[in-house]
Amino acid sequence: MTFTAQFDDVLTWSGVSAATPTEEMNGAGNLMDFLDEPFPDVGTYEDFHTIDWLREKSRDTDRHRKITSKSKESIWELIKSLLDAWSGWVVMLLIGLLSGTLAGVIDLAVDWMTDLKEGVCLSAFWYSHEQCCWTSNETTFDDRDKCPQWQKWAELMTGHAEGAGAYVLNYFLYILWALLFSFLAVSLVRVFAPYACGSGIPEIKTILSGFIIRGYLGKWTLLIKTVTLVLAVSSGLSLGKEGPLVHVACCCGNLFCSLFSKYSKNEGKRREVLSAAAAAGVSVAFGAPIGGVLFSLEEVSYYFPLKTLWRSFFAALVAAFTLRSINPFGNSRLVLFYVEYHTPWYMAELVPFILLGVFGGLWGTLFIRANIAWCRRRKTTQLGKYPVLEVIAVTGITAVLAYPNPYTRRSTSELISELFNDCGALESSQLCDYINNSNMSRPVDDIPDRPLALALIFKIVITIFTFGMKIPSGLFIPSMAVGAIAGRIVGIAVEQMAYHHHDWIIFKNWCRPGADCVTPGLYAMVGAAACLGGVTRMTVSLVVIMFELTGGLEYIVPLMAAAVTSKWVADAFGKEGIYESHIQLNGYPYLDVRDEFTHRTLATDVMRPRRNDPPLAVLTQDSTTVEDVETLIKDTDYNGFPVVVSRESERLIGFVQRRDLTLAIKNARQKQDGVVSSSVVYFTEDAPQLLASNPQPLKLRRILNLSPFTVTDHTPMETVVDIFRKLGLRQCLVTRSGRLLGIITKKDVLRHMAQMMNQDPESIMFN
Amino acid sequence: MTFTAQFDDVLTWSGVSAATPTEEMNGAGNLMDFLDEPFPDVGTYEDFHTIDWLREKSRDTDRHRKITSKSKESIWELIKSLLDAWSGWVVMLLIGLLSGTLAGVIDLAVDWMTDLKEGVCLSAFWYSHEQCCWTSNETTFDDRDKCPQWQKWAELMTGHAEGAGAYVLNYFLYILWALLFSFLAVSLVRVFAPYACGSGIPEIKTILSGFIIRGYLGKWTLLIKTVTLVLAVSSGLSLGKEGPLVHVACCCGNLFCSLFSKYSKNEGKRREVLSAAAAAGVSVAFGAPIGGVLFSLEEVSYYFPLKTLWRSFFAALVAAFTLRSINPFGNSRLVLFYVEYHTPWYMAELVPFILLGVFGGLWGTLFIRANIAWCRRRKTTQLGKYPVLEVIAVTGITAVLAYPNPYTRRSTSELISELFNDCGALESSQLCDYINNSNMSRPVDDIPDRPLALALIFKIVITIFTFGMKIPSGLFIPSMAVGAIAGRIVGIAVEQMAYHHHDWIIFKNWCRPGADCVTPGLYAMVGAAACLGGVTRMTVSLVVIMFELTGGLEYIVPLMAAAVTSKWVADAFGKEGIYESHIQLNGYPYLDVRDEFTHRTLATDVMRPRRNDPPLAVLTQDSTTVEDVETLIKDTDYNGFPVVVSRESERLIGFVQRRDLTLAIKNARQKQDGVVSSSVVYFTEDAPQLLASNPQPLKLRRILNLSPFTVTDHTPMETVVDIFRKLGLRQCLVTRSGRLLGIITKKDVLRHMAQMMNQDPESIMFN
Repeated sequence: MTFTAQFDDVLTWSGVSAATPTEEMNGAGNLMDFLDEPFPDVGTYEDFHTIDWLREKSRDTDRHRKITSKSKESIWELIKSLLDAWSGWVVMLLIGLLSGTLAGVIDLAVDWMTDLKEGVCLSAFWYSHEQCCWTSNETTFDDRDKCPQWQKWAELMTGHAEGAGAYVLNYFLYILWALLFSFLAVSLVRVFAPYACGSGIPEIKTILSGFIIRGYLGKWTLLIKTVTLVLAVSSGLSLGKEGPLVHVACCCGNLFCSLFSKYSKNEGKRREVLSAAAAAGVSVAFGAPIGGVLFSLEEVSYYFPLKTLWRSFFAALVAAFTLRSINPFGNSRLVLFYVEYHTPWYMAELVPFILLGVFGGLWGTLFIRANIAWCRRRKTTQLGKYPVLEVIAVTGITAVLAYPNPYTRRSTSELISELFNDCGALESSQLCDYINNSNMSRPVDDIPDRPLALALIFKIVITIFTFGMKIPSGLFIPSMAVGAIAGRIVGIAVEQMAYHHHDWIIFKNWCRPGADCVTPGLYAMVGAAACLGGVTRMTVSLVVIMFELTGGLEYIVPLMAAAVTSKWVADAFGKEGIYESHIQLNGYPYLDVRDEFTHRTLATDVMRPRRNDPPLAVLTQDSTTVEDVETLIKDTDYNGFPVVVSRESERLIGFVQRRDLTLAIKNARQKQDGVVSSSVVYFTEDAPQLLASNPQPLKLRRILNLSPFTVTDHTPMETVVDIFRKLGLRQCLVTRSGRLLGIITKKDVLRHMAQMMNQDPESIMFN
Repeated sequence: MTFTAQFDDVLTWSGVSAATPTEEMNGAGNLMDFLDEPFPDVGTYEDFHTIDWLREKSRDTDRHRKITSKSKESIWELIKSLLDAWSGWVVMLLIGLLSGTLAGVIDLAVDWMTDLKEGVCLSAFWYSHEQCCWTSNETTFDDRDKCPQWQKWAELMTGHAEGAGAYVLNYFLYILWALLFSFLAVSLVRVFAPYACGSGIPEIKTILSGFIIRGYLGKWTLLIKTVTLVLAVSSGLSLGKEGPLVHVACCCGNLFCSLFSKYSKNEGKRREVLSAAAAAGVSVAFGAPIGGVLFSLEEVSYYFPLKTLWRSFFAALVAAFTLRSINPFGNSRLVLFYVEYHTPWYMAELVPFILLGVFGGLWGTLFIRANIAWCRRRKTTQLGKYPVLEVIAVTGITAVLAYPNPYTRRSTSELISELFNDCGALESSQLCDYINNSNMSRPVDDIPDRPLALALIFKIVITIFTFGMKIPSGLFIPSMAVGAIAGRIVGIAVEQMAYHHHDWIIFKNWCRPGADCVTPGLYAMVGAAACLGGVTRMTVSLVVIMFELTGGLEYIVPLMAAAVTSKWVADAFGKEGIYESHIQLNGYPYLDVRDEFTHRTLATDVMRPRRNDPPLAVLTQDSTTVEDVETLIKDTDYNGFPVVVSRESERLIGFVQRRDLTLAIKNARQKQDGVVSSSVVYFTEDAPQLLASNPQPLKLRRILNLSPFTVTDHTPMETVVDIFRKLGLRQCLVTRSGRLLGIITKKDVLRHMAQMMNQDPESIMFN
């Protein structure tokens, strides 16, 4: 069984290329070529290399064809083929269940550990503040702070709940816990899974575009990322769990891929699953399944067939409902920030909304530039050598500065939730004190403008230094927090203006005296959308996520106005979002579908060899010896070699991968009698006519790709870029009137694009 | 100015191919080749032909490059370039505004004319029933039928509102109006715009995939389709306005494309606008902007870059809000069927939901098969020759059968809306009589099961014969109606079961005696989704549209369960939805992105010439005379010819389009001195060495595509299909070791695919 499976794998590529349809029926016919034992790794890729999408697709079709034809043989094979057809849905179900569960567990753990920094529940130490007070007695939400079972550390240790001493002790313990959590997080990441750091989205984008980073989505990464994510978020650092949750979901996807050879053995199919997993990740991060699917489509995925769209949607829904049944927020709501507004918005409010959009765009630009500059500094200077120290220092600073301000002390998502909320009669938020305290003659001095402004500045600065440290860190939440604070400030300002100057012409039409005609929470939401849009350059998915949070089309115009403005403003300063910038910083070979290549260069300008280079390293179809091949492999580091009829005619017949060639020769030398250094390697159907004295020749037609992709030297580069993008090529051969002139690899394309955009072409490091 | 613009157009293709980057700077250098006056139609396509996406893209990049480089020259050029960059958004805005307005006008007109069949408003004859009663006095909805200003025809004419005589007179006039409307509709379509018939979606799908049907999206079609759509819907036929609204929106898109040469002169860019317009169409049809965008993405569009996603969203939103500000439904709701349910659903209810899914799948299969069979009959028999008679007959039958049943008498969308609704205390619907009449001891005899069942059968049968007639007809609404009726019947059955047997084990957990624990309206909605899914095979967009109608994630699981089941059941009987089936019926060259080609054939099996055919018609680069070319053009009907070095070597150098060749020679004969029949045509850079006695040669390099797409004869057909799909090719040349062997056109690919699926390859009619 195993033998056949492996054997099939070897067959695939050459099988498709060489076999004519009549041969298809006659499996035994092919066997003749493969008397030597198959070598297992043919058709796989090396680490940090680009995959060949066409080849993967071809292999999958072959596999599918084989299963379909076998299914007619017996009931058992039929069942197997049905199982195979359903495996995609099974994987989606499993991904949904596991990522929903993990998200729920993470939410609960974060909740508990965040509260642990302040105090402990006497009745059961594993209860968070909220759970503790729910359990102890059926108090209303207002009495939450008076719940006796929950004790702050100072109260527990000294018996005094109030006073300067208790404050200092609480402050001190808050910092201590934060340091402990972040130290644990960074140490675990360093020791067990270095890939668990960061948000993971840049790498996932790169992987989905067809790049191999082994271990990036492995089991260890999954485990460590989940644990350290809890620690990192609980430590109070200015980071979110949304990006890492996408990474966690993708790890789940990768894990379940290994259950089915359909996905584990095909890098192309695997990426379909990962795209869906990314959707599930966002779905649980925000409780927004449709937004998650669109996020995967718009932001993360590269190859997204319609089948994947539907499956992603399924995975996203399963994940969302799994999370809901765990019910970590205790309110059986699906969404992270559920809001319901009671007042409509008015046309005149579009002005502050658009201003918030401008702010979001500026913040996006500032953040990307500053963060990339800091990350580059980290990469190039001594700073990068002390990641633990860096994390400790940033955590310390964050904790010291965050504690005194009530808005930054709590977790960021709680803050956002409060900022989004409308000030209703039941709302106990400090944000609403200025309204609730005295409904008749609102005193202006309670307005929380100063602490909010301080929180804004603090968040802006600290986030720049936090994102990119060696711990799991997402930036959705911090970006949204910045926007929500700014939005709320603007909202309160407009509200006060409308309250005190309701006779102004702009308010006159829609604002009766004394009425609540402005919803500051809506401003916070619009601001959050604008800032998130400025940083990530998401568009449709952003609006849809926000739409799912509010659940009404009413507020889509403000959100959209802000999102569009923010994107335009940010794009004016640079086209790349934070993820693309980090991809560039790391030199990954990512061919962005959104970039437009508009320069007037031709394939001949990009192909190698260049004018003064040595000629292209090629193999001939029937006159190279094993030794020649081995020398070529040793002397060059190309990923593959074109095979031509002869060096004189230079007429192309195929392309052979370096890895396959190495494996085939190694294998032949070990297993096949008579193959020596002077054996002739041939790629033709029939062995070449050789003297009897010559050693036995080695037939390698089965590893030859007989349908390499070619373009003419006159092909405009924009077409070449388009072909690379849409077909997911790894390399492409350049010909003129049928003669081989050169080769263009993905790296060449990317370097050329970088050069045309006046960037350093050497920044593209991998192929 | 005009001269330059035309001139630039001619330059584009050859400019890209031939010019090296250094030449780019030196515009004058190119001029030397084009001393002859340019001929305007080069680079356009003939009617019923496929476009070359790569070429269109290339031309657009050229245009863009030219504008960018010019923009540095003067302020005026800079402004022009900014206008050009913004023109996409302007077009979207205009499309949104116009399609929203048209949708509003259509809604108002349909409302009025549907009511006109029953009676007239005395205070103002242009008021619909509802408007009439609103205006006359401020009655509640309950008193609607008692509004004195609204008079039925019988009352107006005879003074008697009740009685058998009045009923018969009303019945008769109802039929008469219906016949008048449908006669007008079909006559207008026949006389002025034959393309205005049908839903238009199959054709739009084909056009978007890169096919030319001139006039299909023209101004006349727009005008006539709008008018006849109103007439057709008002006539009471079993058809909807949703599909035609997409067509109308696409006509708007095409109209506004003509304002900007960026879109009007480039078939590729034009299709980006049309994709967005389709989204706007669905957006106004249902009031579901996100669903509209996803519909365009999933169902209609072919080439959908991310930029288009964002713009589509914008167009869809503008359209939705324009429609809302017109407010045709008088309730300032955006959505067509707004519903709000008050009871949650329970796990056990998934069983009837899934059964509804099965019903939807079966209905989809039945409808597609029966409708296609009927349409084929119409095409092939005498039936097709009397479209007016057919429409009249179907209208007559519909009106006669529909009037007696209160559920089919009213407009279908009103019916659906009522079926979706929950039976609240304020609800005056007949559907709820059995609940409202006696809340204590619900009598079972009021249950509207018989009229609903009759309505179901009637709708099922009549819709099959209606869709495809020569009037505008959408099938979203009829399909949804079938599903909603079936769903409501099931819902009422479950409700009654739960009411009478609340001690059964399945109801025990969630249904207290006497409580409303089942929402029949939700069943209607689930049924509608299932039936629509079965017919169109929409998935994500369907669920999202339904989600936007309900506005809550609560009901997404029932909807999704039904949609998935329906799709699976329907797919088991045949992969194609109704639109794909109609595309096939019409023989359009549509390469479905969803079909997977899994057969093991190679390019060599598909290419022409076949084994026994005459050799491929080629041109040589410097030895064919004008006369030879003209003979070749006359004797063959190929769309283009490969150019080779010589007939002996068969090495490919390029490809020339038939249309360009014809135009170029015609032009040269007219304008260029010395070009006679024996002139040699040459495609090389330099003129061939000829004797002095030979006539002046004709240089045609500028119309030569120097980068034709090639594959080797060993390329698997699945790869070839993939390339055709993803790159939007028109043809592809087949080579082996640099020698030209044959050619594969899109038609060849489609015919081969049809053959492999045991369909008639001759059904593909166009190239």
